[in-house]
Amino acid sequence: MAITKYEGILYGGDYCPEQWDEATWQEDIRIMKYYGVNTVTLNVHSWCVLQPVEGPYDFTAMDRIVRLLEENGIQIIMATGTAALPHWMLEKYPDIMAQGIDGTKEKPAKRVNYCTHSANFRREIQRMCEALAEHYQGQENIILWHLSNELERACYCDHCAAEYRKWLQKKYGSLDVLNARWNTMFWGHQYTSWEQINPPAYDNMVYRNVDGKGIDISAFPTETIEYLRFVTEGYRQCLEIEKEAIRKFIPDALVTNNIQYLPNREFQYDRLADVFDVASCDSYPVKGEEPYISAFHYDLTRSLKNQDPFLVMEMSPNHASWQLCAPVKRPGELAKIAMMALARGAESALYFQIRRCRSGFEKFHGAMISHAGREDTRIGRELKALGDTLKRLGNTFLGSRIHADAAIVMDWDSRWGVQIPSNIQKGTRYMEEVSYYYEWFYSQNIMTDIVRPGGDLTKYKVIAAPMMYMMDEEIAENIKKYVRQGGTFIMTYYSGIADYEDNVWLGGYPGLLRDMFGMWVEETDALEKDEENQVRLNTAWGRGEYSCGYMCDLIRVEEAGILGTYGKDFYEGSPCITENQYGAGKAVYIGTKPDKELLDVLLSHYCGEKEAHPVFQTPCGVEAAVREKDGEKFLFLINHNDTEETIKFKKTYRNLADGEAVDQMVLPHNGFAVIEIS
Amino acid sequence: MAITKYEGILYGGDYCPEQWDEATWQEDIRIMKYYGVNTVTLNVHSWCVLQPVEGPYDFTAMDRIVRLLEENGIQIIMATGTAALPHWMLEKYPDIMAQGIDGTKEKPAKRVNYCTHSANFRREIQRMCEALAEHYQGQENIILWHLSNELERACYCDHCAAEYRKWLQKKYGSLDVLNARWNTMFWGHQYTSWEQINPPAYDNMVYRNVDGKGIDISAFPTETIEYLRFVTEGYRQCLEIEKEAIRKFIPDALVTNNIQYLPNREFQYDRLADVFDVASCDSYPVKGEEPYISAFHYDLTRSLKNQDPFLVMEMSPNHASWQLCAPVKRPGELAKIAMMALARGAESALYFQIRRCRSGFEKFHGAMISHAGREDTRIGRELKALGDTLKRLGNTFLGSRIHADAAIVMDWDSRWGVQIPSNIQKGTRYMEEVSYYYEWFYSQNIMTDIVRPGGDLTKYKVIAAPMMYMMDEEIAENIKKYVRQGGTFIMTYYSGIADYEDNVWLGGYPGLLRDMFGMWVEETDALEKDEENQVRLNTAWGRGEYSCGYMCDLIRVEEAGILGTYGKDFYEGSPCITENQYGAGKAVYIGTKPDKELLDVLLSHYCGEKEAHPVFQTPCGVEAAVREKDGEKFLFLINHNDTEETIKFKKTYRNLADGEAVDQMVLPHNGFAVIEIS
Amino acid sequence: MAITKYEGILYGGDYCPEQWDEATWQEDIRIMKYYGVNTVTLNVHSWCVLQPVEGPYDFTAMDRIVRLLEENGIQIIMATGTAALPHWMLEKYPDIMAQGIDGTKEKPAKRVNYCTHSANFRREIQRMCEALAEHYQGQENIILWHLSNELERACYCDHCAAEYRKWLQKKYGSLDVLNARWNTMFWGHQYTSWEQINPPAYDNMVYRNVDGKGIDISAFPTETIEYLRFVTEGYRQCLEIEKEAIRKFIPDALVTNNIQYLPNREFQYDRLADVFDVASCDSYPVKGEEPYISAFHYDLTRSLKNQDPFLVMEMSPNHASWQLCAPVKRPGELAKIAMMALARGAESALYFQIRRCRSGFEKFHGAMISHAGREDTRIGRELKALGDTLKRLGNTFLGSRIHADAAIVMDWDSRWGVQIPSNIQKGTRYMEEVSYYYEWFYSQNIMTDIVRPGGDLTKYKVIAAPMMYMMDEEIAENIKKYVRQGGTFIMTYYSGIADYEDNVWLGGYPGLLRDMFGMWVEETDALEKDEENQVRLNTAWGRGEYSCGYMCDLIRVEEAGILGTYGKDFYEGSPCITENQYGAGKAVYIGTKPDKELLDVLLSHYCGEKEAHPVFQTPCGVEAAVREKDGEKFLFLINHNDTEETIKFKKTYRNLADGEAVDQMVLPHNGFAVIEIS
Repeated sequence: MAITKYEGILYGGDYCPEQWDEATWQEDIRIMKYYGVNTVTLNVHSWCVLQPVEGPYDFTAMDRIVRLLEENGIQIIMATGTAALPHWMLEKYPDIMAQGIDGTKEKPAKRVNYCTHSANFRREIQRMCEALAEHYQGQENIILWHLSNELERACYCDHCAAEYRKWLQKKYGSLDVLNARWNTMFWGHQYTSWEQINPPAYDNMVYRNVDGKGIDISAFPTETIEYLRFVTEGYRQCLEIEKEAIRKFIPDALVTNNIQYLPNREFQYDRLADVFDVASCDSYPVKGEEPYISAFHYDLTRSLKNQDPFLVMEMSPNHASWQLCAPVKRPGELAKIAMMALARGAESALYFQIRRCRSGFEKFHGAMISHAGREDTRIGRELKALGDTLKRLGNTFLGSRIHADAAIVMDWDSRWGVQIPSNIQKGTRYMEEVSYYYEWFYSQNIMTDIVRPGGDLTKYKVIAAPMMYMMDEEIAENIKKYVRQGGTFIMTYYSGIADYEDNVWLGGYPGLLRDMFGMWVEETDALEKDEENQVRLNTAWGRGEYSCGYMCDLIRVEEAGILGTYGKDFYEGSPCITENQYGAGKAVYIGTKPDKELLDVLLSHYCGEKEAHPVFQTPCGVEAAVREKDGEKFLFLINHNDTEETIKFKKTYRNLADGEAVDQMVLPHNGFAVIEIS
Repeated sequence: MAITKYEGILYGGDYCPEQWDEATWQEDIRIMKYYGVNTVTLNVHSWCVLQPVEGPYDFTAMDRIVRLLEENGIQIIMATGTAALPHWMLEKYPDIMAQGIDGTKEKPAKRVNYCTHSANFRREIQRMCEALAEHYQGQENIILWHLSNELERACYCDHCAAEYRKWLQKKYGSLDVLNARWNTMFWGHQYTSWEQINPPAYDNMVYRNVDGKGIDISAFPTETIEYLRFVTEGYRQCLEIEKEAIRKFIPDALVTNNIQYLPNREFQYDRLADVFDVASCDSYPVKGEEPYISAFHYDLTRSLKNQDPFLVMEMSPNHASWQLCAPVKRPGELAKIAMMALARGAESALYFQIRRCRSGFEKFHGAMISHAGREDTRIGRELKALGDTLKRLGNTFLGSRIHADAAIVMDWDSRWGVQIPSNIQKGTRYMEEVSYYYEWFYSQNIMTDIVRPGGDLTKYKVIAAPMMYMMDEEIAENIKKYVRQGGTFIMTYYSGIADYEDNVWLGGYPGLLRDMFGMWVEETDALEKDEENQVRLNTAWGRGEYSCGYMCDLIRVEEAGILGTYGKDFYEGSPCITENQYGAGKAVYIGTKPDKELLDVLLSHYCGEKEAHPVFQTPCGVEAAVREKDGEKFLFLINHNDTEETIKFKKTYRNLADGEAVDQMVLPHNGFAVIEIS
Repeated sequence: MAITKYEGILYGGDYCPEQWDEATWQEDIRIMKYYGVNTVTLNVHSWCVLQPVEGPYDFTAMDRIVRLLEENGIQIIMATGTAALPHWMLEKYPDIMAQGIDGTKEKPAKRVNYCTHSANFRREIQRMCEALAEHYQGQENIILWHLSNELERACYCDHCAAEYRKWLQKKYGSLDVLNARWNTMFWGHQYTSWEQINPPAYDNMVYRNVDGKGIDISAFPTETIEYLRFVTEGYRQCLEIEKEAIRKFIPDALVTNNIQYLPNREFQYDRLADVFDVASCDSYPVKGEEPYISAFHYDLTRSLKNQDPFLVMEMSPNHASWQLCAPVKRPGELAKIAMMALARGAESALYFQIRRCRSGFEKFHGAMISHAGREDTRIGRELKALGDTLKRLGNTFLGSRIHADAAIVMDWDSRWGVQIPSNIQKGTRYMEEVSYYYEWFYSQNIMTDIVRPGGDLTKYKVIAAPMMYMMDEEIAENIKKYVRQGGTFIMTYYSGIADYEDNVWLGGYPGLLRDMFGMWVEETDALEKDEENQVRLNTAWGRGEYSCGYMCDLIRVEEAGILGTYGKDFYEGSPCITENQYGAGKAVYIGTKPDKELLDVLLSHYCGEKEAHPVFQTPCGVEAAVREKDGEKFLFLINHNDTEETIKFKKTYRNLADGEAVDQMVLPHNGFAVIEIS
């Protein structure tokens, strides 16, 4: 389902009228209109206004701001406001407070601090959502419902423990099955009653926070992963409750929730996204971050909902205030980040927030209206210019889609598998491994989807699957089918290792795909950060010495051909990159982390061979993406370089951003263009 | 009130006779007299001796040591001993044990481990102080009462929570006022009953210990600051109880407490100091620490009590044993540190401790008598020499005062404001920012007071106010009055931002002082530690390029003149240093952290202009300070350089340390002199 | 008592048949026999199999595997399995779960997670051991009983607290004695009832985890040390219970427990070893670790039981999976590590484990049979070759012993004394200090025992005692006796400081040995890691300038001669190395940490003088050790260099590894030989 209710690219952001007097509302509306804001998200934090004490809801104040926005032609995204619970509720129903893995209860006032399995919590959010939907069911300018806000955090309370046991009973049926699937004979901890099973606790961690970034090493990774699945399910159910409560009164209401891609590991975002009508994410790139990271998050968000257009719900117009050192955004950065999202399928430029708050943790976070309260500022001028551009772009490319020749496999379970590690590289960050491959596709302007391993692979010419740790028969067959039919499948070290209960597939890695790759891995060496080996590439289409490191598979070839061998250490000369013809396709195995130069040689070859081409040739550092709709093509160009870049077209096109005809153009630093090339 | 009871500079330190047999007492007295010790602090840790079980007090042993000291002409500072509570008390009254922010109770035996709001605790310390004062009211050689010891630590127990709510009710009257002042609409956590308000907890921290030095980032800094004010008030009340208990029997008793300037952030020391008759501090400079740090602590301590002479209560004659790597003091260091304090208004050289203990955490801490138990040691010879010097100095400069032309504003609330940070530089250390400016005044031998923002500013020629984050109307008016009357007021980035509930002043920083400075700050950039920008200074009295960093204000000038502009980045050419004529004075704004060279140019100019001159011209690295009394002037000279330095006088003076007449002198490394120059 | 029951060098390792089906057992036996495995450790983690619910034991499955091993001629080490408790037990008897120092209970399923003072626990392990021993008393191929597994962790529960008080009452008799011995007057915390005494808690730590490696700084080190003694005693009693339960049915059963030398500090391993018949250890050298570390652990393990032969119970055939970055073992490394142990008195090459587990924390730990399940692998070939070598070596040197001329003093109490530090170098690691000296003896091929300070010293020619912090009269007399009789005793800084309750000996360090050394230490300077001083050595047998650092004693010489003086800082020229003739022997004091060059000069001189010679001259990097039995001598040679090394013999010997006669040989990288040289 696409978002069909709104007009134009959504421009605006979160607004907290409850923090300001009504005179300020008037001033804010004036500045919003000056900027060209057409959309405002309300009610993210105002449950305590709608229901200051237990009992009936009071929509008086909310009605006033809703009416004011309507009068001024501004669309509304209505949040359910359930992330920030009122004090009275937590005082009366203390079971609602989440409990940390260390046994301490969360404290009131922080956000998303509840137990998703609390019956009191579930009842209260259902009632709130029903009341909201009932009250605003006729409100035409509400275009979308924003469920909760920025989910995070797992609860480990006794009630969760009880629900967890029920969930396990349903999943496994008997303790015998569970003991077998969980291999509880390891360290002799077979369960003989369901009551013995508990959520993970720090005491069962072998190490804690091994990399200073929150990675714990569990003695029983299988059980930790299982619990995190249960946590995801708890959140999924709560989102479902909210959606159903809204749909009770507004059957065609569209819902979303703003995902934030944090290094915490509590959720399978793809499971949560199944609830949404529209996928959305927050976007807070930090100073010095490579642009491909944001692009990856955008492609990932789009991929969560069938490659449909998506929304960016939050960006910061200036400081991202949670950074330890939070610089100002550089000139042009604000619009560039927004255009990057639009280029990859987004249909919004929404900010947190409209007006900067006076106090609290986020008081120095960027906002469309700063503490000075005026629009004649550097950021004000940039927001006005962005608003003008978005207005010119209008509906041109709304509803258009990305057609990707390439895909990257992303598996949220494998993420847990490698980050709750008993492996040989404890600090492994799955997203970094995946985006290491993604970066190449991005840099080549090859449109790329992020696919689930069990999804439809057949539409892609080339698929890369970095560190695809977990696998089952069904997924293995899905991949084999893809290759048999002619696809090129590129997989790396530490893939196909375990099943979804984290039991290693015996008989040689990569387990179920060993025959497809025509080789197996006897051992895997782990290299320290400052260590490296070499790859000697020796193929018809490439020859040379390159650097590699991190992990080095010692490969035993069966059917496969050898593309590259190691150049150092006792395994010098042994194979590290292999290719196997399988059916009509190719199974390529890269048994080490190649340097970027070698990655370029390898992926260029396989993409070239399958004609997975760039959508547009640009100078290095200039990003290009194409969206398509009804035969029309929209080319987005974005210059990330410090210097200006000249782009030449084969014929004369129209630049949608200014309406001018162009056959070549100069993009300044941070400059961008949207060109209709169909 | 000055200390008037004693004779000579106080020389000696803490003594724990309860750890030793009486034969050792005799030996200790012999060595003390050899050194010239005239003062001993008793009873810091001997409550368990005075009251081994609940019930009557037993002063027998204490009487013996008091008599022995009296017989040997040694003055006594009597501690109340309330920092180290006896086990029986904590066993019987467990509510006395403090509770940490993580909910765990402190354990017996550590010091300052109590809840200041425990009624049992308050009753017991009152009784103990009354008993002590009643018993020793006639003891002539007790010159001072030392309340508690080295305060630290906040309690977060339920009883504190209840008292906190009462304190808030009294302060705010109604929840409506509190909600408004605390801006509880942020993240929608409006309070609807007083019971919902709790002390801060780790769970409300967004980050914990962000800089590895204990800085937490609260989601609700306003509430954290408010609670820390309440904590200060709890300690203040306990100190008051002790003082009143002593005064009941000794109406003219003088009291103090030894402040330690730790990076913990629980107290407003100026509020505590209001209880004392005499300000005092501990002084433990570590190896490699720049001398200005100690000087700053001394000037700060003096400033806590109206610039009256103060006491240093603890120094180490050798190792400071809490250091991870604790070196020996270098030859001459011991006396030099003592002289630095005397130079800035101190009237004591007191040590922790007289005799080194045999076991426990401090068994390798320096002491006047080491484990070897003899005086014929390197440290013994240095202590003997110091004692001889102090004897020669006698009463010459006792009661003399510092006359400062310059002042630095120090605001303990602003310290919290920037260290419980939601700001753009999370690792900010307020004391480092303040002492960055202080260091220049120190290095120039310009006497400097540390003033509270609401104090009398009019007596100073030049005032610097680095990072004066918080402000209210009264303080703003106090500053304006100072400038209007002709003062020069120098303020920096991140000043005038918020009110005392940490609500940002709207309309452009620095809020209430915007008109006085004739400019406002549109944005502030944050630079990483290894980043820098440049300042292009362009004035009649200075021109050149300098380095700057840390924070860079983007300034919009209104009335002010521009003294310097940035040399780099997108804000190259925009103003960073401004000067505004305001009434008869000048308001100077420095919107970035200048390098030391530029700071020297700026402060030299403004001090020169106002004739805030050095008290004495010395070679770089030789510290000079002047104390004055009844028209007499005492010049202190201290050589911090590794090489000897020659000092020439304009006429012949008397060197009080040896009585010789001098018209020039050579100060060796670590050498010092006290010259009567009136 | 030596191990007399078995045939040949024990080769094999831990086996967990409970994790595999019986078909896999057959395959595993086949591969074991191919490798030459003769010994398997069973039952380390299978209590939950033997007793799945409370009640009778079920040995059916165990009997099957025992019979299978017997049929295949494989010897058994039977573990008691008490380290991994079944869930039902912890569910029914929650008092069994240990409590951490932070007050949280351990969680089920981890290992060694029990309270050693729980009566329920003691009863259950006794019953289990009795049942095991009764059932298998006639089983001839059980050669050894392995008690528990890899002990770790202290419990701090209330029951421990109560037992601790009883233990203290027994030890001290009265509170007066305890207060005096513990010097509780420090910080005034005299105990007036036994109930006031508690286990250490984090709140009594002054710092926590000062070096990032788990070192805490207690305010009361005496009390922390005392509690850790009590913890050791708890484990000792449990081991004793297990031994007695087995002996009830098998009076001549031999028992051991596999020590792991971890940086945790809970145990005095020498006290635990008193329970064992055979000392044993685990051995997991990590990549890049110097070989002397393993050698030190082997010599230490042998020394725990009267220099009798010992066992290595666990090595990894490949990855040590707990490492953050866990590389593969290099070719030859596996056999080399095993030979190093055999060279120093071991009689086994046992691995964890036979077959790699499928899941859990250790699923990527090296194993004799990898996930691929085949023997035709690199590691398989190395294991086969090692098995062949061990078979050829047969019983040749079994029962042979090490004859050491030199000894190093190791005192587990001193370890605590310096690692629960109030000292001037908080990060001190006792084992590093001791092994710094050990390394020299190792590098010289001088056989060295590790002795307890109260043990028989008289059989050694030279003894080094680095950082022998604690001392009492008896030990001092033991040392003096040794020197008086002609021994050379070399001691360092930070020795002889305190008694065993951590009370400093007064009158000048090194306290009770001051007269023997003819000098005393006035002060000790602490140098940062990047600081150094120099030693000017000036003796008849050595002269030169060397570097030194870490700690620098400032020495006052009385009778002693001065061998070296400092070359820098204010103590330039003052003595740092002294030698004192005492009776017929020499007392040498090294007051600083010398660089390796100077250490070589000093130890070469003293060993040379006493004719404590290398057992064999080798090129640098080639390790030599000699075991002796019945007049036979077995020379072990191991090449740690990256290049091959040629060894020449004075006459023709027999190389036991291949039976060939040799008068010279070439050892490749990681190569080794066992030569019969008698």
